[in-house]
Amino acid sequence: MELFYAYEVSGGVCFLDADESGHCVRVLRHRAGDPIDVIDGLGTLYHCTLVDDTPKGAQAQVLSSVPGFGAHPYHLTLGCCPTKNNDRFEWFVEKATEFGVDDIVPLIGERSERRVYKTERAERIALSATKQSLKARIPSVWEPVSVKEFIQMADQVGHDGEPSVMPGTDRASLRLIAYCFEDDSAPRISIKEALAGFKGTSVTILIGPEGDFSPEEARLALANGYIPVHLGASRLRTETAAVTAVAAVYFNYMR
Amino acid sequence: MELFYAYEVSGGVCFLDADESGHCVRVLRHRAGDPIDVIDGLGTLYHCTLVDDTPKGAQAQVLSSVPGFGAHPYHLTLGCCPTKNNDRFEWFVEKATEFGVDDIVPLIGERSERRVYKTERAERIALSATKQSLKARIPSVWEPVSVKEFIQMADQVGHDGEPSVMPGTDRASLRLIAYCFEDDSAPRISIKEALAGFKGTSVTILIGPEGDFSPEEARLALANGYIPVHLGASRLRTETAAVTAVAAVYFNYMR
Repeated sequence: MELFYAYEVSGGVCFLDADESGHCVRVLRHRAGDPIDVIDGLGTLYHCTLVDDTPKGAQAQVLSSVPGFGAHPYHLTLGCCPTKNNDRFEWFVEKATEFGVDDIVPLIGERSERRVYKTERAERIALSATKQSLKARIPSVWEPVSVKEFIQMADQVGHDGEPSVMPGTDRASLRLIAYCFEDDSAPRISIKEALAGFKGTSVTILIGPEGDFSPEEARLALANGYIPVHLGASRLRTETAAVTAVAAVYFNYMR
Repeated sequence: MELFYAYEVSGGVCFLDADESGHCVRVLRHRAGDPIDVIDGLGTLYHCTLVDDTPKGAQAQVLSSVPGFGAHPYHLTLGCCPTKNNDRFEWFVEKATEFGVDDIVPLIGERSERRVYKTERAERIALSATKQSLKARIPSVWEPVSVKEFIQMADQVGHDGEPSVMPGTDRASLRLIAYCFEDDSAPRISIKEALAGFKGTSVTILIGPEGDFSPEEARLALANGYIPVHLGASRLRTETAAVTAVAAVYFNYMR
């Protein structure tokens, strides 16, 4: 099964951009009349007939639609400080998308070595991994935001996510912060235990930079309803920790 | 904390090879008299004093030892068909080592596109990830073996693993095979469920190539006591599936 991404679906027609059209028409040699499957990136799969095989602007007629195609039974916002080595963060974006993530938030922490992050490549990787793993919704990659700003945001999910909730005031949303240092005043529990005790579906998890969150960032998170967690006994790289957090959520909701 | 690897420990002395000595003496500028931490790759950490700072053959005197340093509470043998793209398989080796794996077995399946696999690079990556994630035991990377041969092996753990058990005859060992096709005669359960129902600690998991196991390989596995599992609703790349299997075991034994 091969999926194509439509940047617009209107009037029963899916519009493919130059990249997707080229892949569909030039590489895979589809011609008008062929059945193709198209996603809108927002969660719906469309079974279509290719009606215009222009290699820079193909169009397909919708036959039927499958809302929630490849959807997962939770809403996960994953905030992670981009790693010094860009490849490692992009690898996290790919794997998180394969498992299932909704919002990816590049965070700039007080101890972040990387203080600037461009989202274009991560967005392309998220699109490609969405198609490869047979999902119809592409995770939103946010513009970078500071750890403190993000923690204090009322709305921690993207425009197409669940309704916004104030951190710490609505227990229908679970907020976790994974850090490495021990703080006797706020002992950490395992992420597995934190998730197992939660009956809702909206989860936000924060993963710090190579140098960890600052104590001040951690305090602010706790004051805003975040629960401090650890990811088990292994010392994990930043990007492995981020994927581990996504996998923990994936396994938590696995039947 | 920085770990060095000793290829030999005898008479209370740890012997570092040229690479490790160079890193210790040239890069980190340790000198005779400095305290350093050394692993033997078999599971023990040694707190030492550097006594010979020769940059091609350093030696350290053992002060005390920590057996089982960074050990995990299970023995995991992970058989996985190397991917066409070598980087992706090596990434699996790195991540599996960070989580905790004991034996990594490159499998050649009937549908494998890659039919030859050299283990040198994977061994270097396993060593580096072991040190980075603060463990004392380096996973064994086996020489490649065919899927059918491996399934029929009596001894599926390395020389320093647990005692050998005959597949299918000893329920103290759990054997799982993850494949994608549906087989009505042997319905798959989730890996989470398979692990949760198991009270032992010795687990073997097989992950197939991009084109999946052949039906004949799957039948042979089932005949040898393997339980067919799936890894959840997402379609995962081979190397993501392999890391997912390791993560599932890691989470299963997490307190």
